[in-house]
Amino acid sequence: MSRALDFLTEALRRLPGVGPKSAQRMAFHLLQHDREGAAQLSRALYEAVDRVHHCALCNTFSDTEVCELCADPERDRTLLCVVETPADQMMIEQTLTWRGLYFVLMGRLSPLDGIGPRDLALDKLVTRATDGVVAEVVLATNFTNEGEATAHYISEMLKARGLQVTRLARGVPVGGELEYVDPGTIARAMLDRRGA
Amino acid sequence: MSRALDFLTEALRRLPGVGPKSAQRMAFHLLQHDREGAAQLSRALYEAVDRVHHCALCNTFSDTEVCELCADPERDRTLLCVVETPADQMMIEQTLTWRGLYFVLMGRLSPLDGIGPRDLALDKLVTRATDGVVAEVVLATNFTNEGEATAHYISEMLKARGLQVTRLARGVPVGGELEYVDPGTIARAMLDRRGA
Repeated sequence: MSRALDFLTEALRRLPGVGPKSAQRMAFHLLQHDREGAAQLSRALYEAVDRVHHCALCNTFSDTEVCELCADPERDRTLLCVVETPADQMMIEQTLTWRGLYFVLMGRLSPLDGIGPRDLALDKLVTRATDGVVAEVVLATNFTNEGEATAHYISEMLKARGLQVTRLARGVPVGGELEYVDPGTIARAMLDRRGA
Repeated sequence: MSRALDFLTEALRRLPGVGPKSAQRMAFHLLQHDREGAAQLSRALYEAVDRVHHCALCNTFSDTEVCELCADPERDRTLLCVVETPADQMMIEQTLTWRGLYFVLMGRLSPLDGIGPRDLALDKLVTRATDGVVAEVVLATNFTNEGEATAHYISEMLKARGLQVTRLARGVPVGGELEYVDPGTIARAMLDRRGA
C-alpha cells in the first residue's frame, strides 16, 4: 500500500485509547475526507510541542513563563488549591467559588503504575507552598484510592512545614437521593455531619 | 490556560469518534507523557497529506502513481475485484485466494449520508474495467443494505458494457452452527445451494 499511510497509522496508535482498527479508520478518514483537518492537526501538534511548557508557579500547561491565572492580581495569594489535572482545575474554576490560586500535580501517586512521589512535581509544590504568602492549602485531588493517598502524602509533607492543610468536603451530592447514594458516601456524610 | 493547547484539543476533535473529553485527554497525555509521540504524529500527518494520493489504476491510497499491487506482473489482469475500502482489500489479500487485481471505491452509495454515484470513483471504475483486458469483475462490497445497493448499481453499469459481473457468495459462515445462524442467512444459503 502506502508507506506514508502505514507511518501515519502507526503514529495515531500513540494516542491513548486508539487501537489498530481505530488508527486505520482515523487515517483513512483524514486522507479521504479531511486533509485540511490532517494538516491542521499536524500544525497544532508541532506548535503544542514547541510552545507548551509548565507554568513556573502552578505547574499547569502554559505558553508563557507564568500562566494567566497565576498572574491575575485579583486572586487571593494566601490560598492554594492542589488538583491532579488541568481538567480538574477547570471544573473548579467553573464553580466560581474559588478566589485563590492553584497547583496542578499533573498526575497522582499510583504505585501500581510506577508513579511515585518523584514523578509528581512535589518539590515544586513544597517550594510554592512555602513562599511565605500561602497560608492555607486545599487538597482537591480525586476521592479515589489514588487521589486519597496523594492527598494524605501531601498533607503530611505540608503540615510538617507548618501550613494549614484542608481537604474538599465529602458527602451526599447536591440533588442526591439517599436511596440511590452508595453506603460508603452516606457513612462518610454521617461521620462528617455538621450543625444545621 | 494555553492557546497552543486549546488549538491542539480543537484539532484532535477532527478525528472520527473523538469528542471534547477524549480530545482533552489525548492532548494532556501527549504533552505530559509523550511529546516524542506528538512530534512523530505531526510529521506523519504532514507527510501523509503531502505524499499519499490515489493509485491511477485501482484508486487505493498510494505514494506512487501506480500502487505496488497493480504494478505486480504476477497478477492476473483479466480479473478485477471491487471493494469498498483499503481495509476490505487487505482482508481479501490475507485469504491468499485472489490472484487478480482490485478497484477500491473508497466508500459506498449512501443516500442518507448524501453519498451518491458522483461521490464514488465510478467513472474511474468504468474506465478501468473497460480497458479491454479485464474480463470478470467480482463485486466484494459489504453485505449491508448500502453495500448491496452499491453492488447492484455497479453491476447494472458494467453489465451494460458487456462485462461478466459476479458477486461474493453468501451463505453459512465457516464453523457456523445452523442453530445460531440468523434465518436470513440460512434462507439465502438454501436458495443458493449447490451440488455437493
